[in-house]
Amino acid sequence: MSEFVHVAVDAMGGDNAPAEIVKGTVEALQSCPNLKVTLAGREDQVRAELKKFSYPEDRLTVLNCSEVIEMAEPPVDAIRTKKDSSIVKGLRLVKDGECDAFVTAGSTGAALAGGQLLVGRIKGIERPPLAPLLPTAGKPVLLIDCGANMDPRPTMLLQFAQMGSIYMRNMCGVANPRVGLVNVGTEEEKGNELAKEAHQLLKECPDINFVGNIEAREIPEGVVDVAVTDAFTGNAILKTYEGVAKVIMHELKDTLMSGIVTKIAALMIKPALKGMAKKFDASEYGGAPMLGLKGLVVKSHGNSKASEIRNSLKQCIDFKENNINELFRTEMKLEEAAAARRNAAKAKEQPAKAAEQA
Amino acid sequence: MSEFVHVAVDAMGGDNAPAEIVKGTVEALQSCPNLKVTLAGREDQVRAELKKFSYPEDRLTVLNCSEVIEMAEPPVDAIRTKKDSSIVKGLRLVKDGECDAFVTAGSTGAALAGGQLLVGRIKGIERPPLAPLLPTAGKPVLLIDCGANMDPRPTMLLQFAQMGSIYMRNMCGVANPRVGLVNVGTEEEKGNELAKEAHQLLKECPDINFVGNIEAREIPEGVVDVAVTDAFTGNAILKTYEGVAKVIMHELKDTLMSGIVTKIAALMIKPALKGMAKKFDASEYGGAPMLGLKGLVVKSHGNSKASEIRNSLKQCIDFKENNINELFRTEMKLEEAAAARRNAAKAKEQPAKAAEQA
Repeated sequence: MSEFVHVAVDAMGGDNAPAEIVKGTVEALQSCPNLKVTLAGREDQVRAELKKFSYPEDRLTVLNCSEVIEMAEPPVDAIRTKKDSSIVKGLRLVKDGECDAFVTAGSTGAALAGGQLLVGRIKGIERPPLAPLLPTAGKPVLLIDCGANMDPRPTMLLQFAQMGSIYMRNMCGVANPRVGLVNVGTEEEKGNELAKEAHQLLKECPDINFVGNIEAREIPEGVVDVAVTDAFTGNAILKTYEGVAKVIMHELKDTLMSGIVTKIAALMIKPALKGMAKKFDASEYGGAPMLGLKGLVVKSHGNSKASEIRNSLKQCIDFKENNINELFRTEMKLEEAAAARRNAAKAKEQPAKAAEQA
Repeated sequence: MSEFVHVAVDAMGGDNAPAEIVKGTVEALQSCPNLKVTLAGREDQVRAELKKFSYPEDRLTVLNCSEVIEMAEPPVDAIRTKKDSSIVKGLRLVKDGECDAFVTAGSTGAALAGGQLLVGRIKGIERPPLAPLLPTAGKPVLLIDCGANMDPRPTMLLQFAQMGSIYMRNMCGVANPRVGLVNVGTEEEKGNELAKEAHQLLKECPDINFVGNIEAREIPEGVVDVAVTDAFTGNAILKTYEGVAKVIMHELKDTLMSGIVTKIAALMIKPALKGMAKKFDASEYGGAPMLGLKGLVVKSHGNSKASEIRNSLKQCIDFKENNINELFRTEMKLEEAAAARRNAAKAKEQPAKAAEQA
C-alpha cells in the first residue's frame, strides 16, 4: 500500500471536461493517499478548475497539452498527427513507465488505437480487448470485447476469456467466475464459424470455468460473470443495452410527468426509483478497462461526471495493487504461448520452404 | 379482398399451445372474412380447445399431426425425421401451394430450417432473413436479419436492405424507409470486413434510402425504419433488447412493491404504466416474418398469447394482399440478378479453365 500508483488523466476528454474530470481527480486524490495524478490538458483551463479546490499539491502535476483529439476524428490519424494532445501525451507517460495507467472520457477510438500503438501489448497477448462491466439484475457482468478488434481469431476469444476471469477474480472478488460465450443458442454446434471454433477452445481450457454458450438476453439476467464475444457483437450488445435502458427510463419519466395524479405518485416513489437507477448506473463501476497492455488504459463514458472519474482512478489503483498484468503473464503462461505460436508458424514455413527447394 | 388467404397454423408451438393458439386463430377468423386456416396439431387436443368457441367452421380445417418438434431439438434433424409434426406438415402445405403462409410460436430453429428446406427461396434470393419489428421511442424498426444465416456475404445484406424497404413501405405504410447499417461507428471505413463491404453496396444501391451506418443504441431511439445486420449480430441485438427491457420492468415492479407508500403510488400510475408497457410490447406487431421464401413463414414469440397469433394471421393477410413476394421479384429484379450472378460465376471459371488447358 505504501507504493504510489501514478495515473495520467485526460483532462480534456468527454462532454464534461475539464470541470468534472478535474473535480473527480481531486476527489480521488483526497480519498486515496497512495495516488499520484498527472492531469494532461490545456494548462490554463485545468488550473482554472483546480483553483476551486484544495488538494494535495505534491501528488498532482499538470502537463500542458496544446491539442485536443475530438470525438469524431479518425482515431489512427489523430494519434499520429496530434502529438501534443492530452491522449497522446497521457499514453506516452504509460509507455515510458512514468505512469501506471491512463484514464480518459474522450474518443474511444483514439484511446483504443493509442493503447495499441503507443502503450503496446504485453508479449503473448494477441489483441487487447475493451471490457466494460455491465449492470444486471444481480452482480455486474464483464463484457469482453467491445473494442476495436474486428474479425478476431478464435484464439483471441480464448485469451479474452482468460483475461476476463483473472480480472473478475482479482478485481471484483468473484471466486470462480462463470464464463459464457455469446451465441445464438446454447447448443455447441450453433453460431458463426468464429463462435463454433471459440466454443471448442473455451471448452478445452482448464483455467476457466466455462459454462457454455449464452444468449445475449442472459447478460442482463446476470447468469455469467464474464460474457465473451467479438468486438463487433460486443459493441452492438453494449450500445443496445445503453439505448434500451435510456429509452425506457425516458418513457417512464414522461409517463410519470403526464398528469397530476402521476406527478404526485412520482414524488412518492422518487427515493425508491433513485435506488433502482443507481443499480443500473454503469458509472458505479468506473470506466471500461482495455486489458492486455503494458499498463492500463481506462475508457470512461463520454458523459462521465466526477464520480465516474473518481471510480476509474480507484480502478487503476486496484489494478496495480492486485498485479493484474503480472497475473496475466503468469497464469496465462504468455511466454510459453508466444513461443508455441512462433514454433507453429515456423513448422508451417518449413514444408513450404522444403517444397520450394525441392 | 374477395380472394381467400389460406394460412397454416402450428397449433402445438410455444409455451401456451394449443389453448392460446386456437383462441387467437378463432379471433382472427371472426374478424377477417377472407381468412382460411388449417390448424396443424394433435387433433384431439385442438378439437378440445375449439369446443370452447363458436367460429366459421367452413373456414377452419384441423390437420392431425402425431408428432411435435420440441424447442431444444436440433432443427435440421427434427425437420428431416419428424415428418408428421405440425411444423413439417404446416410448411408442406405452403410448399404445395395449398396455403399462402405458415404461423408458428414453436422452435425458431425448426421454422427457419424448414422454411429454407421445405418451402424454399424465391429464385434470386440468396438467403431468407428473419425480420422482427422492434418497438422504439417512435415508430417500430425492422431488424433484418436475426435468423439462421451465419457468416453471410455482403450481397446478402444488400438484399436484406431491399426486402426490408419493400416490406416497410408496403406493410407498414412508411413512404421512404430510412435504411441504416448496424456498425461500431458512423464513419464508413469502420467495422468488420462484412460491414465495410456491405456499406459500399448499400451506398451504391439506388432502390433504397440508405442513411449510413448506425450504432445499435440508435435502434431503440427509432432513427431508422430498417436496421440491416448479419444474423449473429441481429440475434445479439434482439436478445439484449428483450433481456434489458424485461429486467428493467421487473426491477420497476419490485421497486413499486417494496413498501406501502410505493404500493399506493403504483395504483395511481397503473393506467399510465400500462400504456407505456403496451408501447414496448412487440406482440402488437405480430410475429417476425421470414422473408424471401415462396410463401411466408411467421415466427411468433414462444410466449405468444392469442392476441399475437391473431396479429400474425392478419400480417399474413396483408402480406398476400400487398403482393410482397411479387414486389420482391419485380422491384429487386431477381431474375436479372440471378442471371448476372450466374454469368459472373461462369466468367470466373473461364480463366481458370483456360489456365488449366494452357
